[in-house]
Amino acid sequence: MLHRKILTGFALLLATSAAQAGTDEVMSLITEGTDTVPACATCHGETGLGSADMGAPMIAGMDAGFLAGALHGFADGTRVGDTMSSIAPELTGDQITALATYFAAQKAEKQDWPAPETEVAADAAAGEALFHNGDWSREIPSCASCHGQNGEGVGAVFPRIAGQETAYVAQRLEQLAAPEQPSSDANKALMAAVAGKLTPEERANVIAYLATLDPNAGPLTGYTPADLSWDMPKMKDKPLAAGIDWTSAQTAYEKQQKRINNPKVYTHTPPTLDQIPEGPEGDLIRFGRDIFVNTQKLRGTYVGNDLSCTNCHLGAGANPNAAPIWATTVDFPQYRSKNLHVNTLYERLAGCFTYSMNGTPPAPNSKVMVALESYMKWLGTGIPSDAIVEPRGYIYLPVPEEKPDYARGEAVYAARCATCHGADGQGKKEGDHVVFPPLWGANSFNWGAGMHDLEKAAGFIKHNMPLGNADLTEAQAWDVALYLNSFQRPQDPRWLGSVEDTRRFFQRGTNTYGTTTPNGLMGDEGAPLEKPAGLSAAESAAPKLTDVAKAQIAAGSN
Amino acid sequence: MLHRKILTGFALLLATSAAQAGTDEVMSLITEGTDTVPACATCHGETGLGSADMGAPMIAGMDAGFLAGALHGFADGTRVGDTMSSIAPELTGDQITALATYFAAQKAEKQDWPAPETEVAADAAAGEALFHNGDWSREIPSCASCHGQNGEGVGAVFPRIAGQETAYVAQRLEQLAAPEQPSSDANKALMAAVAGKLTPEERANVIAYLATLDPNAGPLTGYTPADLSWDMPKMKDKPLAAGIDWTSAQTAYEKQQKRINNPKVYTHTPPTLDQIPEGPEGDLIRFGRDIFVNTQKLRGTYVGNDLSCTNCHLGAGANPNAAPIWATTVDFPQYRSKNLHVNTLYERLAGCFTYSMNGTPPAPNSKVMVALESYMKWLGTGIPSDAIVEPRGYIYLPVPEEKPDYARGEAVYAARCATCHGADGQGKKEGDHVVFPPLWGANSFNWGAGMHDLEKAAGFIKHNMPLGNADLTEAQAWDVALYLNSFQRPQDPRWLGSVEDTRRFFQRGTNTYGTTTPNGLMGDEGAPLEKPAGLSAAESAAPKLTDVAKAQIAAGSN
Repeated sequence: MLHRKILTGFALLLATSAAQAGTDEVMSLITEGTDTVPACATCHGETGLGSADMGAPMIAGMDAGFLAGALHGFADGTRVGDTMSSIAPELTGDQITALATYFAAQKAEKQDWPAPETEVAADAAAGEALFHNGDWSREIPSCASCHGQNGEGVGAVFPRIAGQETAYVAQRLEQLAAPEQPSSDANKALMAAVAGKLTPEERANVIAYLATLDPNAGPLTGYTPADLSWDMPKMKDKPLAAGIDWTSAQTAYEKQQKRINNPKVYTHTPPTLDQIPEGPEGDLIRFGRDIFVNTQKLRGTYVGNDLSCTNCHLGAGANPNAAPIWATTVDFPQYRSKNLHVNTLYERLAGCFTYSMNGTPPAPNSKVMVALESYMKWLGTGIPSDAIVEPRGYIYLPVPEEKPDYARGEAVYAARCATCHGADGQGKKEGDHVVFPPLWGANSFNWGAGMHDLEKAAGFIKHNMPLGNADLTEAQAWDVALYLNSFQRPQDPRWLGSVEDTRRFFQRGTNTYGTTTPNGLMGDEGAPLEKPAGLSAAESAAPKLTDVAKAQIAAGSN
Repeated sequence: MLHRKILTGFALLLATSAAQAGTDEVMSLITEGTDTVPACATCHGETGLGSADMGAPMIAGMDAGFLAGALHGFADGTRVGDTMSSIAPELTGDQITALATYFAAQKAEKQDWPAPETEVAADAAAGEALFHNGDWSREIPSCASCHGQNGEGVGAVFPRIAGQETAYVAQRLEQLAAPEQPSSDANKALMAAVAGKLTPEERANVIAYLATLDPNAGPLTGYTPADLSWDMPKMKDKPLAAGIDWTSAQTAYEKQQKRINNPKVYTHTPPTLDQIPEGPEGDLIRFGRDIFVNTQKLRGTYVGNDLSCTNCHLGAGANPNAAPIWATTVDFPQYRSKNLHVNTLYERLAGCFTYSMNGTPPAPNSKVMVALESYMKWLGTGIPSDAIVEPRGYIYLPVPEEKPDYARGEAVYAARCATCHGADGQGKKEGDHVVFPPLWGANSFNWGAGMHDLEKAAGFIKHNMPLGNADLTEAQAWDVALYLNSFQRPQDPRWLGSVEDTRRFFQRGTNTYGTTTPNGLMGDEGAPLEKPAGLSAAESAAPKLTDVAKAQIAAGSN
């Protein structure tokens, strides 16, 4: 508190003294000097921009309190300086105040200072790391922690170091590293300790980095509300193909092939059930697995259809051919093009409940959600966090030359799929127990689920169906994928009031939504869903693309 | 649908026929047989429990429709069976129905069937893995996916296999693997395909595992509300020491030493700033780092005091001596004794905002939270998900023989800490910019924060303070830790209405809350906080320990 009071008093003094010194006298001092004081401009330049030739620091725009304090320090000998130690004692208190006030009011400029003269080339990137992180193994705090994230300086105590002239900083660090007298000032003592630990190379690196910083970046200000909110992205809003657009499926295939063929691909082997640990974490992992496999036990709470997680993620999420879930802990938070922002695993799982389960997501921190996340984490045991894990998702197929066909799909379905999934696609139930899942209709996934993208359905079918005997050709898999997505299913929860708008904004993948099949205009039946109740909590702070889309529709954009 | 109608009709038929067959006639058939039909009990036992000697399956309690279907299959030759193929043709339709109804009504029993006779010893654990996961590299679905998670069977189509007699199952799998005629029934075709792929060892393993299952486990039922809610734990509610309890600090030290000395410890080197990727994920990582380092930019939104994350997690969370945050992605979800359940990283971070920042947590999926999680994930790049990462948290010190002392702490504080943190402990500010953080009082962390635990404060101080020159002895670190926690600070947000109750339920670590120091009864000042507004969303589905505590208080328990 004492310290702060002194500073406040000092600032008042400055304001008063600037007038006392008088502008003409100050300018004369700066540009011409006196008999005993050389012109400041000789070394520092008329506006205090400094000089590499003279090794003079850029003082323009530095804190007036700091500049005055430095001059007083040179004057009374508590601060060391070759040139200034002989000049400052000649200045009056009023002159010091006036000079400090004048130079503080000048505008700094980013300049191309020469690299520090060192035996090895200075490495600005290494300097940046030191500036921001320090080196805690040697108790070197980061420069930024006192001088500010931009090196902009803090008040009268911590000088601006951003964009400072290199020879001057080098000289100053050397002085601090070998102080002629121990300082009683805690800040200077800290800086002396730090400077003393830096190797000559490290000093050169930091100096080189400081020279790259903008001296006008200024102090930090608080975040604005806009900073703290997700960007509302510009929605894709271009003309649509009349029928199914096959290009995104082909792009998805090619991108995935590149990833799969990366020689650094990490192939994961999940742990076995007997390796689930004992204790509360293990209990939750087991509960999560039970939910994953027997998801119908959530029917009526979070699940609105006849599906279980394991229907699409076969083998309790541990089948590499069916979107294994073991890499989720490594993957998230992750950017998703589906909702145009970075998602946590929680938000991703909320999406499963909303679309694939046609239900309502459990709340964050709920036992159900934490159990699912715990199971997924356990399943990924041992995956390095920077691993390129493949396969992930469904294994896509190239889009065939001869486009998929409803009639061919119908024939394959009848011959190979209907025995389990029913001629009517409604799967098989024994009492309440769903044995084989329905593929369309009110009890299947809705139009927002990934499986309604034809490339996902085709990849799933090709590599997994019929169960235990996946022998369909790629063309047959595509045909069946088209066929089973040519029936109505529950509405897309992102419903915008019309099939046309919903397709335009949300259904740009390779899918049938908004196209006409032998069973009608897809999306035209199925009650338009209200946003599921639980989703508001789940998405509370995430961008609401439906809002963006509605605004664009209201504005008449297309 | 057709299939389901047949089954429904069949069930009606059974109900009618049971009466027609007559109980006496059925019992006579079972226990004595007829001229052409040997007594069922000879092989299956009177209540259908089966027999290892006869290789006869346990049919007690199996689905009546399945049993009748099997008998009809033996009778008309569509099902293969050594003994039953000659017996079943002698049964009338009514007898089949009556027998199926009778055995379905009997109670199964878990029995000690002999291990299957194989060349190698059967491995029930390997069988369990196959039962639950299948082997998707060979397109073998899990047994559980059709027969149920408990092997309990599903309706008339999928027989119960739990606890089944081993020789019978072995024989049946062999028959299915080499069917005499291809089945037109999809389920049988699937099972034939699966059985055909199992090696003799795998069959033995599965059979051995099936024998361990309880045949009465029964079908799955939906989760109850209690299943889906976190347990409300029993609170610790024992007599408290009158003053500071030092035992938990010593325990924490010893536990951590064991972890640190584990030879498998993984030592992490975080990536450097220039390795942050481009694109939306990289942008969010940078934003997360900025929040972490310049947390005061959140002052007034989520932060209620003068602190930044980096004040305690020095070096932007990358200082191994100061609770580095790089292992968080690997650690969470994780059980926490602080709130007695498994926490996600989100809930953990919400705790930081609530206690250490004395503020209000941002919402799940908010840009601020996802940014922080993204930064932490990035900082942990490369850590294997099963790594034992040390050090984590603060590095504890052993509790000294001579207990920490306020007066000694005061002296050390004045000599070594006050220069930066102020004689009044209020840190140093330059304008709005906090340069050195306050250590107690209204603008510091509250009584719920980790740093008010003396072992954490002492460990932090010993290894990091004074900044850049951490040369205090262990005893001095303990003394200072005690000293700075002997002043009032904001109330614990878990406030239960009195210092005594709040201490009894939530302050059982090594801390000063509820004890009397030279500055009064700790916790007795500072406005009792209402639960921060944002916390309700953050904790929405997590156990509310304050509720548990209040209930216990209301019930008069102590």
